[in-house]
Amino acid sequence: MRILGIDPGYGRTGYGVVDLIGNRLKPVEYGCVETKPNTPIPDRLVEIYGAIREIIARHKPDAMAVEQIFFAKSVTTALDVAQARGVVLLAAREAGLAVAEYTPMQVKQSVVGYGKAEKKQIQEMVRMLLGLAKIPKPDDAADGLAIAITHAHTAPLQSLAERKLKQ
Amino acid sequence: MRILGIDPGYGRTGYGVVDLIGNRLKPVEYGCVETKPNTPIPDRLVEIYGAIREIIARHKPDAMAVEQIFFAKSVTTALDVAQARGVVLLAAREAGLAVAEYTPMQVKQSVVGYGKAEKKQIQEMVRMLLGLAKIPKPDDAADGLAIAITHAHTAPLQSLAERKLKQ
Repeated sequence: MRILGIDPGYGRTGYGVVDLIGNRLKPVEYGCVETKPNTPIPDRLVEIYGAIREIIARHKPDAMAVEQIFFAKSVTTALDVAQARGVVLLAAREAGLAVAEYTPMQVKQSVVGYGKAEKKQIQEMVRMLLGLAKIPKPDDAADGLAIAITHAHTAPLQSLAERKLKQ
Repeated sequence: MRILGIDPGYGRTGYGVVDLIGNRLKPVEYGCVETKPNTPIPDRLVEIYGAIREIIARHKPDAMAVEQIFFAKSVTTALDVAQARGVVLLAAREAGLAVAEYTPMQVKQSVVGYGKAEKKQIQEMVRMLLGLAKIPKPDDAADGLAIAITHAHTAPLQSLAERKLKQ
């Protein structure tokens, strides 16, 4: 199963593509879609939408996992992030991808095993789980990978639970 | 000048198309894009995006005016509305439309001349300004028309002011 994890933002949208083979994780690509601060929001949305579509077309993931919005800075910021998130979800559904959503706490719990883990701990666990030599940069890319890993840990258990329910 | 006014929402997105000919306003079309409550948000975003693209393609407006988000109900609702707003802005920019944004207070001020006007007053003024026999229904469609009218009142003054600055 190939998973595309996304941490949406209007300035920086982090992404990570991960393959789950058996119970092993393999990094495929990660990075960050950046838009310029002086560009109006509608134009930034066009850029983000285009970039995510391109990543989906290139890697053909089986599922997308997206971080839920966290009110870190301000309500205005959260609304702009939500607008960016809207075009990310649109790109996913247009490509026929199932979309899973995880809270920042679920990501920490899944990647580090502790819901209040610090950023550094998450990044180090992402590095270890994917067998990378260094911590992935920028931070947004590491966040995208962490969300993809969360889905890799969660989805097989979910489908097992669903199969059990049907029996 | 043809203006498309939009009041974004994930359940109901109201829209109104208005022609400004000289200083007269003419209604072209108005209505509401509805999505079903049980449908997941990503699928609703696909529906809203498709419907707005279709309205733009059919009416070829010169500009789009969109209502800014108002925290009426809850933060969660506002975030979902923002996601819908994101795909509306995307559709506008992809079609090369300039996007103007107005707060609910600006709309009231422009349509009724009073920033704290009630919904009924706005709807009655929309009816009068557009020469309609009845108040446009549903409410969301009337809201879309009110935003289009706000832009019709504002845009000519703005371009006049810009021309004066250049002289």
